Amino acid sequence: MKAKILRLLREREGYISGQEICGKLSVSRTAVWKAVGQLKEEGYIIEAVQNKGYHLSGAPDLVTKEEILSRLETEWAGRPTVFLERTDSTNNEAKRLAEAGASHGTLVTAEFQEAGKGRRGRSWTSQSGTGIWMTILLKPEFPPSQASMLTLAAAMAVADGIQEVTGLKAGIKWPNDIVLSGKKVCGILTEMSAEPDYINHVVVGIGINANIREFPEELSEKATSLLLEQGKPVSRAAVIAAVWKAFERYYDKFLKTADLSLLKEAYEMRLLNKGKEVCVLDPKGSWKGTARGIDENGRLLVEDGEQVKAVDSGEVSVRGVYGYV
Amino acid sequence: MKAKILRLLREREGYISGQEICGKLSVSRTAVWKAVGQLKEEGYIIEAVQNKGYHLSGAPDLVTKEEILSRLETEWAGRPTVFLERTDSTNNEAKRLAEAGASHGTLVTAEFQEAGKGRRGRSWTSQSGTGIWMTILLKPEFPPSQASMLTLAAAMAVADGIQEVTGLKAGIKWPNDIVLSGKKVCGILTEMSAEPDYINHVVVGIGINANIREFPEELSEKATSLLLEQGKPVSRAAVIAAVWKAFERYYDKFLKTADLSLLKEAYEMRLLNKGKEVCVLDPKGSWKGTARGIDENGRLLVEDGEQVKAVDSGEVSVRGVYGYV
Repeated sequence: MKAKILRLLREREGYISGQEICGKLSVSRTAVWKAVGQLKEEGYIIEAVQNKGYHLSGAPDLVTKEEILSRLETEWAGRPTVFLERTDSTNNEAKRLAEAGASHGTLVTAEFQEAGKGRRGRSWTSQSGTGIWMTILLKPEFPPSQASMLTLAAAMAVADGIQEVTGLKAGIKWPNDIVLSGKKVCGILTEMSAEPDYINHVVVGIGINANIREFPEELSEKATSLLLEQGKPVSRAAVIAAVWKAFERYYDKFLKTADLSLLKEAYEMRLLNKGKEVCVLDPKGSWKGTARGIDENGRLLVEDGEQVKAVDSGEVSVRGVYGYV
Repeated sequence: MKAKILRLLREREGYISGQEICGKLSVSRTAVWKAVGQLKEEGYIIEAVQNKGYHLSGAPDLVTKEEILSRLETEWAGRPTVFLERTDSTNNEAKRLAEAGASHGTLVTAEFQEAGKGRRGRSWTSQSGTGIWMTILLKPEFPPSQASMLTLAAAMAVADGIQEVTGLKAGIKWPNDIVLSGKKVCGILTEMSAEPDYINHVVVGIGINANIREFPEELSEKATSLLLEQGKPVSRAAVIAAVWKAFERYYDKFLKTADLSLLKEAYEMRLLNKGKEVCVLDPKGSWKGTARGIDENGRLLVEDGEQVKAVDSGEVSVRGVYGYV
């Protein structure tokens, strides 16, 4: 209910009458009045003027269920959304929800992660109130071997979401780092629980440096935030809604072929490595080549002068001014 | 300590003196006397004769940590062993232990599973005191794509373990059902938690119909037990110890090539489908062929007259007198 009222308030430029809200949501005046009161307590600035109605003139930067649902334009991604003030990590929470029977599309957001996770069990710092920490739960019907490609679709969705809200043109460092001005602004951690020929579930965790004002010195050369790049804070919920809108579109395209055939071109437009040198860590000896794009399975195509080889993410180190944060 | 005393008692044909036990284990006479008392309480029949010592003349059919460790002849498989009187499922328990940092080789056994799991989320009935329900936790360093092959190595280990203890020659229905007299005696459920290029952990759950005297009518044509096949109860701990001894050997061979090259021949000797007709469920139309063996990735090689194709487990239905239990 609160999310629906918030959506109505946000959609209206001027004032919307209490009566109109009641009619649209089929609820009583008292219920509207009560919900508006709760929203004000949460920090929303809602003017109430006799004979005109309500007007939303200010909103706090929240990632609550209501704030996100009031902005979400998806069929299934983020439905339901589960918000937690704090959790160990949103990936872990999503996995627990999956074990308990949560459905495809469930989104977990948190204001603070006590034990945020990076890749391969590395830790990930999650300052409260400044970043976007979220995980979507997916229950795809394709085989486990296809699941790793979702991480590339997620990278595209994050780049799109950032651009839609901030206008900043984010690039992708293969396979799934999102980069602004040569610095990392987002990390993605995809984890899967599977039987040999059956996916139990996939969780795609996304951490975006949204309104972080300052990084520790050792990170400031490698990491940036949306706030630092656009010079003003961003609405985290707006970015979240934009990311999942884009993700849903990419995911549904992905399902058509169960690979990246239909997404390859759009991905390569964002690919910062294209035409650049990469170092491939082959067990038989590492070699350098030029990245040309990706194949339909998301592998990086690297040309070493004579031929083009497709390499997996475990095998390649992409050097540049930006590194792993 | 109890496991070590149990091992010494079991290894000795006749009597072993309290003094010898004290010496071998570097513990006091009182400690030995106390541990022997505890073992008696648990149902072990231990004779104590003045001037001769102790003699184990009878043991209950337990799957406790002590009973298993007193029999285990492995380097790492089953070390440590965690025994639970009851749990939801040993796979779930092993996954929880993995998240909490448990190490490679940890074995979970349970006397009763409240929510035993079959493949693809199916339920699995687990009568107390009659079956073997166990799961090993593995943390391999190879890529996720190789993990599904472990399930074939586990099937070989179960067939070997059964044969070593009972003398019964168990066959394998590809990929991992263990069959005696045309009926299923064991199910294996392998589950993996992974990032796209990194395995967090693999759990291999094994359910063996050990001392089950009777199956419901609808299962009696498809399922059998070690007790029914050999006409007498089996020591479940002996089977468990034999399975992990075999598994450790196969696993270490598997690591050498990160595929089944070195295990293929031994697997095919157990493969009941070899030379038999199978039905391959191709999305473009199912077709029949003759199973010839497996390739080094564990796929079934099926000949359809003109050519031999390698098929994945999701794609094939192997019909026969035995079915999925």
